[in-house]
Amino acid sequence: PETKLPKVGTTIFTVMSQLAVEHGAVNLGQGFPDFDVPARLIEALGRAMREGKNQYAPMTGIPALRQAIAAKTQRCYGYRPDADAEITVTSGASEAIFDAVLAVVCPGDEVIVLDPCYDCYEPAIDLAGGRTVHVPLDPQTFAPDWALIRAAVTPRTRLLMINSPHNPSGAMFTADDIAQLTALLRDTGIYLLSDEVYEHIVFDGRVHESVLRYPQLRERAFVVSSFGKTYHCTGWKLGYCIAPPALSVELRKVHQYNTFCTFAPAQWAFAEMIEAEPAHYEQLGAFYQGKRNRFREQLLTTRLKPLPVPGGYFQLVDYSAVSDLDDAAFCRWLTVEKGVAAIPLSPFYETPPQGQRLARLCFAKNAATLDAAIERLQKL
Amino acid sequence: PETKLPKVGTTIFTVMSQLAVEHGAVNLGQGFPDFDVPARLIEALGRAMREGKNQYAPMTGIPALRQAIAAKTQRCYGYRPDADAEITVTSGASEAIFDAVLAVVCPGDEVIVLDPCYDCYEPAIDLAGGRTVHVPLDPQTFAPDWALIRAAVTPRTRLLMINSPHNPSGAMFTADDIAQLTALLRDTGIYLLSDEVYEHIVFDGRVHESVLRYPQLRERAFVVSSFGKTYHCTGWKLGYCIAPPALSVELRKVHQYNTFCTFAPAQWAFAEMIEAEPAHYEQLGAFYQGKRNRFREQLLTTRLKPLPVPGGYFQLVDYSAVSDLDDAAFCRWLTVEKGVAAIPLSPFYETPPQGQRLARLCFAKNAATLDAAIERLQKL
Ligand SMILES: CSCCC(=O)C(=O)O
Ligand SMILES: CSCCC(=O)C(=O)O
Repeated sequence: PETKLPKVGTTIFTVMSQLAVEHGAVNLGQGFPDFDVPARLIEALGRAMREGKNQYAPMTGIPALRQAIAAKTQRCYGYRPDADAEITVTSGASEAIFDAVLAVVCPGDEVIVLDPCYDCYEPAIDLAGGRTVHVPLDPQTFAPDWALIRAAVTPRTRLLMINSPHNPSGAMFTADDIAQLTALLRDTGIYLLSDEVYEHIVFDGRVHESVLRYPQLRERAFVVSSFGKTYHCTGWKLGYCIAPPALSVELRKVHQYNTFCTFAPAQWAFAEMIEAEPAHYEQLGAFYQGKRNRFREQLLTTRLKPLPVPGGYFQLVDYSAVSDLDDAAFCRWLTVEKGVAAIPLSPFYETPPQGQRLARLCFAKNAATLDAAIERLQKL
Repeated sequence: PETKLPKVGTTIFTVMSQLAVEHGAVNLGQGFPDFDVPARLIEALGRAMREGKNQYAPMTGIPALRQAIAAKTQRCYGYRPDADAEITVTSGASEAIFDAVLAVVCPGDEVIVLDPCYDCYEPAIDLAGGRTVHVPLDPQTFAPDWALIRAAVTPRTRLLMINSPHNPSGAMFTADDIAQLTALLRDTGIYLLSDEVYEHIVFDGRVHESVLRYPQLRERAFVVSSFGKTYHCTGWKLGYCIAPPALSVELRKVHQYNTFCTFAPAQWAFAEMIEAEPAHYEQLGAFYQGKRNRFREQLLTTRLKPLPVPGGYFQLVDYSAVSDLDDAAFCRWLTVEKGVAAIPLSPFYETPPQGQRLARLCFAKNAATLDAAIERLQKL
């Protein structure tokens, strides 16, 4: 058949994970933890199944989970969304993003994304018949360049997609970014999609500038989060979207006919977990900060140069002292020949910066995994 | 915001389930079993979680599950699909249908659906920019009228969607329907989407005419099935699509950026279950036939007239001896005033047949539930 998505191949994450398996490489590529899910979650999920909570959940998510998300949002960001009208549980943040884009982007609309950006944004925009307008982040700091973003806005701009903490760089929006963003959107009808899946993985006392803190932003925003990232269960594919009632209505029209609802027993498990152990997400930054610090120190014993990591669970490294290969070739070589799988940055760009020599390493791993990787990286 | 789906409201299934809860009605509306998931599935899922199978599954589904589906398909329909190239595990049959439609329907394309049809078909077509062409099934027998369908085909027809055993009627395609379908599609480029979620729930020795049995059909078809229907776990939202490699490539482009993958521990559980207990799906027809027969006998003690049920887990009843209300009003009245929730047929139609007085009752219920419903229905 002719294809509606001519640019889409297999995601870089799948490609590198397969390559890692084939070559027995330590997999620091695709972003997923190699440690355990909190025991309470497994226990609660098993209990929910045994109690017979195995039939369709309400399309928007079970009320207990939406209430727990509302309460947690209040605790974290000082704003309590309406659990009925504003919170929708989805099959991962990806489904939430896909639904939101299909819900509001019309054929011919423009959507601004900030490169490098996660690879699922553009295909959703394509399927909606929209046009993706790529605006680069600063190639050194990965900070947004608000003059460039302003210049990209046209009367056809329907949606702006942002992501903080940022994948792949870990960069985070500052209070000044929020002020610039607010000024930019004021008096426009542009919607905002804020991908905040790493909301709880922030370091060095920094504050996650959730869009939910700001009335002028959240009134026009889809804010997306992920239990997979916060609870070490990327394979459970449970996430949610917080959006004002009128936007939630539109998102739910798509969600209702896409997946309808999401694995019900896990919803019961998270409803219990969020309420019973708020310490889990409160301490997630500290937990990952320990891993980040240790990994960065170890990287100093290699010829890879670590960039700053304000948030998230990825470490960018400059490999220019080691190789002059482009990033795709370097990551392939690193995986196949050196036994450490990494992710190149170029697939996150429409136009990768000339000569950029960066690779992404995931440090959501046990110390033994990171030690094994470092041992191999020391030989570069 | 202006809406992309002006016709979409809350699904009739959600509306009636909520009404059932509010009014303490016996819920024979939304289609879901009220009995237990096989114990082995719960045990195996728990084990998968404890063994740490909690991170992303491969985008197409875990190999063990795809192999199990391939082997089962061979056993059931004499055709073994390629587990790598032709099987994709999805978040329920709904996601598979949504992905398939978005993958092949282009703006301006026409998609033929046979009314009454499941309510998720048209919104997916709308989002793809397609036009839904509704062709009625026979209003008495719910058999396809091939002359009408042929007359609906135009050069813009991209896809034909069929569903056997049929929701809401239980009607099943015959060998003659398959012959007519094959003749109709021959020498066209029209794709087929065959929604076979009730494939194992067939009665009285009838054969499920899966599209997978027929090379000339399966070479152009997305065939969709659902573990929720077969294993009594509609809330687990796990299904799959079998399609030839070129169509699977397109489907997966959408799936990859929609949900990416599906709750991983359940995939391990089904991989084990399908292989270990083929008797479960082999005996599913007999299991539900017992329920159907008992329920139909009981219905003869009421003033509702049961229609034939060749397959599926729904019983249509003609209520014209009881009421002259239209079906939406009748089902609401039955739920609120008489304490039994049912589903009207009109939401399954673009143009409901004038004067049709049918309601759908789900008999995927424990005997006690059905008894309680019958007791109330006897008072009509
Ligand atoms: C869906 S696989 C990609 C996981 C991820 O978020 C990443 O590696 O960036
Ligand atoms: C997704 S809720 C609808 C369930 C169902 O298949 C039906 O009742 O027809």
